[in-house]
Amino acid sequence: MAELCIRSILVTGANRGIGLGFVQHLLALPNPPEWIFATCRDPKGQRAQELQKLASKHPNLVVVPLEVTDPASIKAAAASVGERLKGSGLNLLINNAGIGNNNSLDTETLDDMLHVFTTNTVAPLLLSQAFLPLLKKAAQGNPGSGLSCSKAAIINMSSTAGSIQDLFLWQYGQALSYRCSKAALNMLTRCQSMGYRDHGILCVALHPGWVKTDMGGTLEDKSRVTVDESVGGMLKVLSNLSEKDSGTFLNWEGKVMAW
Amino acid sequence: MAELCIRSILVTGANRGIGLGFVQHLLALPNPPEWIFATCRDPKGQRAQELQKLASKHPNLVVVPLEVTDPASIKAAAASVGERLKGSGLNLLINNAGIGNNNSLDTETLDDMLHVFTTNTVAPLLLSQAFLPLLKKAAQGNPGSGLSCSKAAIINMSSTAGSIQDLFLWQYGQALSYRCSKAALNMLTRCQSMGYRDHGILCVALHPGWVKTDMGGTLEDKSRVTVDESVGGMLKVLSNLSEKDSGTFLNWEGKVMAW
Repeated sequence: MAELCIRSILVTGANRGIGLGFVQHLLALPNPPEWIFATCRDPKGQRAQELQKLASKHPNLVVVPLEVTDPASIKAAAASVGERLKGSGLNLLINNAGIGNNNSLDTETLDDMLHVFTTNTVAPLLLSQAFLPLLKKAAQGNPGSGLSCSKAAIINMSSTAGSIQDLFLWQYGQALSYRCSKAALNMLTRCQSMGYRDHGILCVALHPGWVKTDMGGTLEDKSRVTVDESVGGMLKVLSNLSEKDSGTFLNWEGKVMAW
Repeated sequence: MAELCIRSILVTGANRGIGLGFVQHLLALPNPPEWIFATCRDPKGQRAQELQKLASKHPNLVVVPLEVTDPASIKAAAASVGERLKGSGLNLLINNAGIGNNNSLDTETLDDMLHVFTTNTVAPLLLSQAFLPLLKKAAQGNPGSGLSCSKAAIINMSSTAGSIQDLFLWQYGQALSYRCSKAALNMLTRCQSMGYRDHGILCVALHPGWVKTDMGGTLEDKSRVTVDESVGGMLKVLSNLSEKDSGTFLNWEGKVMAW
């Protein structure tokens, strides 16, 4: 396995769950990134305390305020990250922030559909647009090599609930807006892989597993994984990604998922 | 081939293109439906003249005003159709109304993403919710038979542009919001097929082909089909649908499309 060696990385929704797990694992790498940008909606709030505690100990961790549904907030975050990087690029953008609810075919509403779609699908698009100049810069700084996460990559946190073929855990919850938003995110990832290939940027959709987080719910099931297992697995997957993987949908163990 | 024999049908976006083609073909069937409800945004407008002309000649054709992005308009349409049906159900709901644009990864915006998603994905969900009581009634009126369009069905007009695997015509246009909305519509269709099966309602996503309509654009290509070819093919497909087809994604010739 290649060791994951990334100079700069940004993770959205980094104050809890999988996002926070990424930050913790990255800080613990033998070769930690020079810059870890960890975004959350309210860096001064109760829910960001653990992230702030880490930042006070690790000067390479920068907490960035970001409301992913607000285009102006996205632009401000990109400007602030660009300043901090002082002319160098961003290697890895992890679009992790996401929301869900368990509305059914009967109870789903226009407002909920739009809210979930905005956060889970449109935000990764807008973030990729805003950080594209920095991602391109990272790719240009590494011109000889093929596509990889050490060069430049966009990782969209999808879900097997976004697999149209599998309809994962349907009996557990219809989660209609969530499923639609993740199917659309998979489409976005495929489109990004086509559009950004010539810029040297790798794009992948990841299913983190059915993780034991607030969002994953409380059901006990032997297939559930811890945040550590999920994030550890995904970082291993990221370290091995190459050209042929761009535009695929993989789980935390590297297995290809059905669209 | 079974002959398509439907008592009542509703087609959205029926004043032009494929929607109008459906109305024309249905009126010309040897056994035309007792009721054809044809919806459009502005029944009195210039763009609905052809539909109105048909309605003046065919008493079984009813033009219904409907703005598919407006939940109140959807409810009003369902109430008006219910009244007209006088206690009998609706056999077939064709969610045909749709919009598109050719925005790219670079030019796509939050507003466009939401507008296209609302029309192409959320509206079919809300319409299915609103017409569900009438669809159930039609299914209950035909209890012995398996799933079919003559019993009760929801047909969502998708597109192979919604195929995540194929990325159809990427070189012709990125059409990002359109692709994402149709991938999400395919997910909705799969969910509806699961949720509505026990109600006796068949659900299918259809790709009409790359049809020579205003929306299809002006590019000449030998793979393009006329509205007549597309609609004729789709009606033949509909007449043959059964239980095993519910939840699938088929083209106008009945071929299974990749998700």
